[in-house]
Amino acid sequence: MKEVAIGIDIGGTNSEFGFVNHEGDVIAHGKINTIGYPDAKDFVSALCTKIEEVRKTIKEEIILKGIGIGAPNGNYYTGTIEHAPNLEWKGIVHLAEMFRKHYPGALVSLTNDANAAAIGEMIYGGAKNMKEFIVITLGTGLGSGIVINGELVYGHTGFAGELGHTIVITDGRICGCGRQGCLENYASATGIKRTVFELLAKFRDDSPLRAITYNDLTAKMVTEAAEKGDKIALEAFDYTAKMLALGIVNSVAFSSPEAIFLFGGLAQAGDFIFKPTQKYVDQNMLFVFKDSIKILPSQIKESNAAVLGASALVWKELAKA
Amino acid sequence: MKEVAIGIDIGGTNSEFGFVNHEGDVIAHGKINTIGYPDAKDFVSALCTKIEEVRKTIKEEIILKGIGIGAPNGNYYTGTIEHAPNLEWKGIVHLAEMFRKHYPGALVSLTNDANAAAIGEMIYGGAKNMKEFIVITLGTGLGSGIVINGELVYGHTGFAGELGHTIVITDGRICGCGRQGCLENYASATGIKRTVFELLAKFRDDSPLRAITYNDLTAKMVTEAAEKGDKIALEAFDYTAKMLALGIVNSVAFSSPEAIFLFGGLAQAGDFIFKPTQKYVDQNMLFVFKDSIKILPSQIKESNAAVLGASALVWKELAKA
Repeated sequence: MKEVAIGIDIGGTNSEFGFVNHEGDVIAHGKINTIGYPDAKDFVSALCTKIEEVRKTIKEEIILKGIGIGAPNGNYYTGTIEHAPNLEWKGIVHLAEMFRKHYPGALVSLTNDANAAAIGEMIYGGAKNMKEFIVITLGTGLGSGIVINGELVYGHTGFAGELGHTIVITDGRICGCGRQGCLENYASATGIKRTVFELLAKFRDDSPLRAITYNDLTAKMVTEAAEKGDKIALEAFDYTAKMLALGIVNSVAFSSPEAIFLFGGLAQAGDFIFKPTQKYVDQNMLFVFKDSIKILPSQIKESNAAVLGASALVWKELAKA
Repeated sequence: MKEVAIGIDIGGTNSEFGFVNHEGDVIAHGKINTIGYPDAKDFVSALCTKIEEVRKTIKEEIILKGIGIGAPNGNYYTGTIEHAPNLEWKGIVHLAEMFRKHYPGALVSLTNDANAAAIGEMIYGGAKNMKEFIVITLGTGLGSGIVINGELVYGHTGFAGELGHTIVITDGRICGCGRQGCLENYASATGIKRTVFELLAKFRDDSPLRAITYNDLTAKMVTEAAEKGDKIALEAFDYTAKMLALGIVNSVAFSSPEAIFLFGGLAQAGDFIFKPTQKYVDQNMLFVFKDSIKILPSQIKESNAAVLGASALVWKELAKA
């Protein structure tokens, strides 16, 4: 009999799930659309039906230890999704409770995606023996999961860890949150794209990026241009890294972690982002923290990271009990 | 028999101590010079001699439960003072160990001043029932003690909680730490003084502050000018509050506390600092945290706060055991 946790990643378009063992192996998985269910209850029913279908395909005998859910604007304390701009469901959705109706008595734990990524790193990844670390997810925006004293920081509200919404440039770039100068407008896939356009305006150098519209440009294209030595692309990485380093340096002043893990699309640019980030962190770290932190790539496989992170919530909860 | 803790506050000029009971009453106290002891061991010997002198004056029977020390650049994990710029002792000083030689077997706990203030707030002050809060000390610089999940955040190094050294203005004011734009250069007694001089240069309004040299100007004088309606002084408070609010808003994005306590000289300016700080916090808070935090004056009496905070370390350690 193998103990497994179900990890569920609620995305804006699709929701994926997997049956995951203690070692982080996904022994079965599936997905359904997130869109098309105006009532969240119908979505949960459809998802649970699919989960049971997939469960039947598992040959070995399993014991289900619980369900972990990573969801945008997920609140760990209440098991709710609150005012998620990228989901159809408005207001406060009692998602964990809906799952408990389908799995009476089961452990159901919910948090946001970046927090789930941090717990995934702690349970299956590079932070197994760490009590103080931060996972920064560099996707469309910048998410973060902060671990202090071996515990995820949820704060008084359940929404702590919004490093992407720390203001780093007064009167800076307009942010989706309605304010200006938040870190995620500089250090993220969208951030580097905005930086490229600023640099195309500022400099006169030839660049293949001049042939691409704002709508078409992706962080991957910037990486490809950088690989060919394009000056604008390299400069964009340098500036992105400088801003990311500022966020890291300020986070270290706050909670002095042992390591920062970078995760997500932009982290895949490898040396283009890691090298200048390390350079600026070294240059700008407060002296008492010099050489005290490691900046590392996430050790969780990108392809199923969200499902793994969500499943890790279950093992983390069981370890607490 | 009354249980007491000795609280010791190591300052640049003087070091004060007090015998403190569980309720936060200082039942006896004393002080010696900090300067004049090139060897820290001689300082500790002199201080312990003085402590024993004062102990003899206590009429009631006491049981000493431990010694708490608040010291600049104090490291909780190692009980050391490390590279404190304002003390005579260079390098790493094993202060807690030196005290243990004088009080064999005693509990001796050491941390920096701002962390001690936070523990004081938790044990004796306004944070008695809180698990998530931050104490910000607005003195010459800006110190902070961060409490998450009921525990002081020391981080991997023991030096966490350096909110005063988060960079808020890229290429901003030169900081004593060798970098630029750290929060404490704006939100502190020194910060408001620098702001006054910037405003005196920028505006043409008459102001009594134009008759005071930079060397002579104190935060208290700025408060007095503000009380008389001086435009420059009021503007200086507004800008100081704006920067403090930025630090608060970013801290909330990070750890989402229930309350922020303001402490120290500048916090004594009352409404001049609290009102605009609250205004800017309300204006600039990320929507998920709107109205989630209280900005409060410290509930610890300023006159013996450092000694109280240091003594509180002992009760906190005993509660852990």
